[in-house]
Amino acid sequence: MSILCVGSVALDSVETPFGKAERVLGGSAVYFSAAATVFNPVQMVGVVGDDYPLDDLAFLTDRGADLSGIEQASGESFFWAGRYHYDLNTRDTLETKLGVFADFEPKIPEAFRDARFVFLGNIDPGLQHDVLDQVTAPEVVACDTMNFWIEGARDRLLELLARVRILMVNDEEVRQLAGEANLLKAARWVQERGPEIVVVKKGEHGAILFADDWIFYVPGYPLEEVFDPTGAGDSFAGGFMGHLARANSMGADDLRRAVVYGSALGSFACERFSVERLKDLDGSSVHDRVEEFRRITAFETSVPVAGHV
Amino acid sequence: MSILCVGSVALDSVETPFGKAERVLGGSAVYFSAAATVFNPVQMVGVVGDDYPLDDLAFLTDRGADLSGIEQASGESFFWAGRYHYDLNTRDTLETKLGVFADFEPKIPEAFRDARFVFLGNIDPGLQHDVLDQVTAPEVVACDTMNFWIEGARDRLLELLARVRILMVNDEEVRQLAGEANLLKAARWVQERGPEIVVVKKGEHGAILFADDWIFYVPGYPLEEVFDPTGAGDSFAGGFMGHLARANSMGADDLRRAVVYGSALGSFACERFSVERLKDLDGSSVHDRVEEFRRITAFETSVPVAGHV
Repeated sequence: MSILCVGSVALDSVETPFGKAERVLGGSAVYFSAAATVFNPVQMVGVVGDDYPLDDLAFLTDRGADLSGIEQASGESFFWAGRYHYDLNTRDTLETKLGVFADFEPKIPEAFRDARFVFLGNIDPGLQHDVLDQVTAPEVVACDTMNFWIEGARDRLLELLARVRILMVNDEEVRQLAGEANLLKAARWVQERGPEIVVVKKGEHGAILFADDWIFYVPGYPLEEVFDPTGAGDSFAGGFMGHLARANSMGADDLRRAVVYGSALGSFACERFSVERLKDLDGSSVHDRVEEFRRITAFETSVPVAGHV
Repeated sequence: MSILCVGSVALDSVETPFGKAERVLGGSAVYFSAAATVFNPVQMVGVVGDDYPLDDLAFLTDRGADLSGIEQASGESFFWAGRYHYDLNTRDTLETKLGVFADFEPKIPEAFRDARFVFLGNIDPGLQHDVLDQVTAPEVVACDTMNFWIEGARDRLLELLARVRILMVNDEEVRQLAGEANLLKAARWVQERGPEIVVVKKGEHGAILFADDWIFYVPGYPLEEVFDPTGAGDSFAGGFMGHLARANSMGADDLRRAVVYGSALGSFACERFSVERLKDLDGSSVHDRVEEFRRITAFETSVPVAGHV
C-alpha cells in the first residue's frame, strides 16, 4: 500500500550549538519519505532545480520509494538556512530561497493516481487541493500546514479540511487555526470541520492524537543530545503514515501505534544532521525505541489499601 | 505512615479568564495536604496570622491531618494575589504580602519529630535545613524550591540537596539550577549532588521522574477547562508523597504510580478555585482519573509484518 507524498524537496544549511551542515538534504517530502520508507513504500511528488544532488536520494529508492514524481526544473532548488538557539526549541531563519518551488504545480504521475494513502506536506493549500483533484480514490488523506497559510490562505485551508481525515500540526498551529487556547477544544473545532483525527505535535513535549471519543498521548523521547531538530515533524508524519499504510488500517490500536512510531522516527531525526540518522535506520533500532517508549510510560495501578483511596 | 509537611499557609486572591476568588485558602502546605490526605495522614507545620480562617481547614483534620504544627501569630497571614493570562500558562503576581510568614521559624512539635516521610515546601533553604535538623530519623525527604532561592540562596540549596532523596521542581527551575538546557542532563546534574529521584513538573505537558537508570513520564491530563492552575504543583507533590507514604515504599513501581497519582491530583486542583475540588474528592474519582491516564498512554506494539520493520 504505497503512500503518495507531496511536499518540498530542499537543500538546508543548518547551524546548531553542535555544529554546522551546508546544503544538505531537506524538505518535508524528503524527511517524510526517509521515515515512512522504514515501514512502507512511498511515491514522491515534488520539484528540484538543476543544482539538486538527486543521487543522494538513492537510499530512498533502495527502500522502496518511487521518485518518478520529482520533476527537475531549470533553476535553483528550494533553499533554507537556519540557526538554532542554545535550547534548540527556537530557531532563526537566516535565508529562504523558493527557487523553482515558487512555480511548483504538482503533477501526479498516472501510476500514482490510484493512491489510497496520501500525505500532503506543508505547501500552499491551493496546491494541496490540486493534488487531491488528481487522485482518483484517496482513502486516508493526511495534511500538514503552518501559520503562513493559516493567516494567508484560511478559506482554502478550511475547504481542504473537509477533504482530509487526518490533520497533523503543532500545538501553536492548531491553537491559531481554531482561535482557541485549550488544545482539547481546538482539536474539537478542527474535527467539526472535517478531519476525524487531529494529531498535535509538541516537539520535546511529545504528541497527542485526538480521535472522536478518545485521545492518545506519547511523550517526547528524552534525548541526551538533540543534535538537529530540523524535519522532526515531517519524520513524525512519515513514521505515523508509514505504520498506517503498512497496517492498511485506521483502527484505534493502529492509530495509537502510529503515534508511537511517529514519535520514534521524529526522535531519530534529531540525532544527526539532515536525514543522516534515518538513512541507516533498521527495524531493530525502531523496535528498541518503541520498547523504550513503553518502559517510559507504562505503569501498574496499585492494589488499594485500607483507610484511604 | 504520616507525612510531615512544612510550607506556606496562605490566603490567595486569584483572577482567571473564568472568574475571581478573593482571599481563599492557598499556600504550598495547604495544597499539599489537601492532596496528600486523600491517601495518607499529614502533619502540618506552618504559620498564619490572626486573620486566618482556621475553621476552613477542618476538612483536612477530618481526613487525618494534624494541624498542631500550625502556629497562629499576631499579624497578617501570607497573602498572594495573581492574575492568569488567557492561555493560563502565564500569570502576573499583583501583590505579595509575607505578613507573619516573614518571621517564620519552623518549630516541629515533639510528636512530629519521628516523621519518616518529609515534604519541604518551597521556602527559604535555610528553613528547610532547620526542619531537617529537628527531625530525628527522616527516611524519605522531598523538597521543592524556586528561582528566587536558586539565585539568592544557591549554596544553602546545594547543601540541602545532599540531605534530600527527592527534588520536585518545574522544568525551568531544574534547567536554571543545573545551568543546562537538556532536561536529562539537568536531572543527572542534580542527582550527582544528592537526590536519587528528580521529578520535573511541566504543567500542561505533564511530569517526568528521573531515577538512577530509568525514567517515567506522565502527560498532562487534558482538561477541557483549566479553571485555576494555582497550587497544581503542590497538589502534585501531595498526591506523589501521599502514595509513597501509604505504600511505605520507594520501589520503582510505587514511584511510577506516585507520578500518576501526583498528576491526577494536580489535574483535579485545576478544576476549581483554591482547594475546592480537592476538598470533595473521593477515592473513586481518583481511580477513574488514573484509569484515564492509562487509556491515554497505553499501547500494544503491532506484530511485525513482512517486508519492512
